[in-house]
Amino acid sequence: MGKAKRICLLLLRLLASGSTVSAAIVMATSREEARFFTLSFEAKYTHTPSFKYFVIANAVASVYGFLVLFLPAESLLWRLVLCFDVIMTMLLTSSIAAALAVAQIGKNGNSYAGWLPICDQVPNYCSQVTGALAMGLLGLLVYLLLLLYSLHSLLDPLLLKKP
Amino acid sequence: MGKAKRICLLLLRLLASGSTVSAAIVMATSREEARFFTLSFEAKYTHTPSFKYFVIANAVASVYGFLVLFLPAESLLWRLVLCFDVIMTMLLTSSIAAALAVAQIGKNGNSYAGWLPICDQVPNYCSQVTGALAMGLLGLLVYLLLLLYSLHSLLDPLLLKKP
Repeated sequence: MGKAKRICLLLLRLLASGSTVSAAIVMATSREEARFFTLSFEAKYTHTPSFKYFVIANAVASVYGFLVLFLPAESLLWRLVLCFDVIMTMLLTSSIAAALAVAQIGKNGNSYAGWLPICDQVPNYCSQVTGALAMGLLGLLVYLLLLLYSLHSLLDPLLLKKP
Repeated sequence: MGKAKRICLLLLRLLASGSTVSAAIVMATSREEARFFTLSFEAKYTHTPSFKYFVIANAVASVYGFLVLFLPAESLLWRLVLCFDVIMTMLLTSSIAAALAVAQIGKNGNSYAGWLPICDQVPNYCSQVTGALAMGLLGLLVYLLLLLYSLHSLLDPLLLKKP
């Protein structure tokens, strides 16, 4: 593998790790207190299981991403990395999907189930969660790119190379 | 590849397609009408965007799964199948995660956001959704198995074979 290509791949991994770290931090620091007449309530990520899962999944992916950065280029472990990439991409996909599903209810509510939207009461909390989801999505996209690139260079599925 | 192994893999694919088909059908046919004093309301999968996405994702995965069953063993397209397997597994993962997140709110509610559980009002609807999620989960597990098996036979990541 060329040196330029390797540096490019490492930079992509760095970007992925950076995105997942910031997604976890932004989500974990999101909180806002709202006052509704005499009633005061607090919006926090720990109140929603899906958001807790999002933070955990992104933290796990970040630790993994940083560990992979220090793997020497000649290591045989790179074969295992592809399998772990698949698992991490699944983990990030599920966490983002779950958090998005709950955030969608938080934003629009669900009139059939009688769930009211809460974003009008806690707008800062909502925008911080949106930011965390965007960062998580960026991390996921980079992982997906890395994964499809690995598969492409392994398999040549589009049969571009001459046999 | 041995004939027994090929039949085993095809049976796994058949199982995966069967699971995703039944997950889509069970979710799509789930509906229940509930009466709450004079108020009557209907629970249906189309009322929840995540459940709609679940049905669509499982339907897409089913069509793909059945198409792959008819691919001849010598086809060069099998290389492309691995990439599509990755994408389908992502699709199923995200749909199940989103549907699970909403189903969890439907079952337990979220007291902080003021969202009440609805499963006491529509128990049959809830158990049907649970069944659909279980079938979807089975399909996802089989796809994950197929994917990790493909990667294993391609890469030998655990270095079991002698070089």
